[in-house]
Amino acid sequence: MKVNGQHFRAIWMEKEIVCMIEQNKLPFEFEVHRCKTLDETCFAIKTMITRGAGSIGAAGGYGMLQTIYSSDQNNLLNNLHKAKQKIDSTRPTAVNLSYATNRVLQAAKVSRDFAISEAFAVGDECAEHGRLIGVHGNELIKNGANIETHCNAGWLALVDYGSALAPIYEAFNSGKNIFVYVDETRPRSQGARLTAWELNQHGVPHAIIPDNAGAHYMSQKKIDLMIVGADRIAANGDTANKIGTLEKAIAAKYYNIPFYVAAPTSTIDLNTSDGNLIQIEERGEEEVTFFTGLNNNSELTEIQIASPGSKALNPAFDVTPANLITGIITEKGIIKPSLESIKKLF
Amino acid sequence: MKVNGQHFRAIWMEKEIVCMIEQNKLPFEFEVHRCKTLDETCFAIKTMITRGAGSIGAAGGYGMLQTIYSSDQNNLLNNLHKAKQKIDSTRPTAVNLSYATNRVLQAAKVSRDFAISEAFAVGDECAEHGRLIGVHGNELIKNGANIETHCNAGWLALVDYGSALAPIYEAFNSGKNIFVYVDETRPRSQGARLTAWELNQHGVPHAIIPDNAGAHYMSQKKIDLMIVGADRIAANGDTANKIGTLEKAIAAKYYNIPFYVAAPTSTIDLNTSDGNLIQIEERGEEEVTFFTGLNNNSELTEIQIASPGSKALNPAFDVTPANLITGIITEKGIIKPSLESIKKLF
Repeated sequence: MKVNGQHFRAIWMEKEIVCMIEQNKLPFEFEVHRCKTLDETCFAIKTMITRGAGSIGAAGGYGMLQTIYSSDQNNLLNNLHKAKQKIDSTRPTAVNLSYATNRVLQAAKVSRDFAISEAFAVGDECAEHGRLIGVHGNELIKNGANIETHCNAGWLALVDYGSALAPIYEAFNSGKNIFVYVDETRPRSQGARLTAWELNQHGVPHAIIPDNAGAHYMSQKKIDLMIVGADRIAANGDTANKIGTLEKAIAAKYYNIPFYVAAPTSTIDLNTSDGNLIQIEERGEEEVTFFTGLNNNSELTEIQIASPGSKALNPAFDVTPANLITGIITEKGIIKPSLESIKKLF
Repeated sequence: MKVNGQHFRAIWMEKEIVCMIEQNKLPFEFEVHRCKTLDETCFAIKTMITRGAGSIGAAGGYGMLQTIYSSDQNNLLNNLHKAKQKIDSTRPTAVNLSYATNRVLQAAKVSRDFAISEAFAVGDECAEHGRLIGVHGNELIKNGANIETHCNAGWLALVDYGSALAPIYEAFNSGKNIFVYVDETRPRSQGARLTAWELNQHGVPHAIIPDNAGAHYMSQKKIDLMIVGADRIAANGDTANKIGTLEKAIAAKYYNIPFYVAAPTSTIDLNTSDGNLIQIEERGEEEVTFFTGLNNNSELTEIQIASPGSKALNPAFDVTPANLITGIITEKGIIKPSLESIKKLF
């Protein structure tokens, strides 16, 4: 997708260097961060210079690639084993890392060339899945549509295109006149910071709205459809996504507004039969009571924004039951959120 | 209600001085602001040192009282006319100011003593209505209840007790074991700042939650009932309140959780037949894209928190249709949100 009119992916290789957009400095500064060694790549994953399921998976593949480039044939497998351990431990709960590193390691047992091709394939497939989600999802978007989205499920998180934002980019690129209502997405404000930045750079008309305003605009018939991403989709279609997704899905149902989840099929977890089994991560209260942004001198500054002495609760995700979801947009097509439809994908 | 263990109203008289809690410095500093003259009182209303429908109504009454104290019998009415104009123009859209000043002016035509008594009555009645709302609303709260509230409809806004918070204070004071989920209430965060501060000072157990987390806690059966305030109630029970109220009401309906509006009957506007006729104030986008709080040096600091170059929308209120409201808690009792029930109040 575009930054200042130029095409970028969230992460890519230049010879032996892993290059990535420095996401910690967005939306206030755009900077390309370069990792010359595996250690630098691991540090970048750990400190969230690159973030998002697809982008860190790609980073894992590229880290393995750096290891292949710096290894002789006789120490290749041994070095890749060590690299895998190092990479996997940077973000222990992210399944995309071990998926990527395992794929390269297994390929290396066949041949060095196959391992190199697999290392590139992780990121490329993520981008291609995003592109296909865009193509399928675009069919749902009419010319003139107003679309609401929550959090950031864009190309920054998924190498290119994104999941929830992919149909939006595809609709825009194909010349449709669209407008995006971007939920701020407290407490970390990924909507106001990352989604708004992505859309602004790509030229897609949009406005940030407080999370509180979603149902209001739905009641005013300002929203034609809603598309969100997913962190995990259970086998029955129940979907865990950023906190606040559930509230929007309930409001969309109330106003008969189509509510779509967009995600690559790798997000579907057949081992989780339904949403009740998904554990919700509780994060630190300081994400609710403090806020970081640019002060008047353009310095990143942290401020306290809530009443001192009051505690806060900060659940990171919620689970939207399948019956509130109109459909799931995957790289293989749009399906109904049911066990039957999901099983047919695999 | 209590601050550091001591009873306070939001605004009160000490001889000829109007005293008020400096609300612009809350929740970070507690300070009593004193207005020795009518001009100082008008300045305090204008700059929102005191705020909230009931509290500024009381301030209007007290400003008239200062005028009575400083006038001879022969210039009393003339001075009160001028004072009324000055007070009413401080916040031109607030009906409570002209209600208060008119009441004192009319009384002064009868006698000086009657005018003095009416000037005190405005604030005292507001506090008494809050107390009665608390008594009626307390009947809805069981021991052990978890209550969610939105925005600030507490004693800071209504001299004492409040509207939505009055039943909560009454339940707590009567020894019930309760817990309050306080919606942050973006973009101005009156929940995280004022409601949390009020509850903390009075010792009521509570936690701030991001607005996005409301439906999540409802889905987890953590919320037993929800109570919100009102900015205007139409004759059919449709209720305008802080943006986000509608979304909570829809979620509460979805989970069969009782959803109550608490407000003095003065909030009911019989001239507005239904909610569609209520104009929604659109406020500046900088309330969404900038945030003010305390920096590390305890200085109030404004920071930019959203992607520069993206615009934001900021509707201040939304309208919750009467069919989503379980009941309206007034100083005269709890009623159904219907034209029939509302008409019986008057």
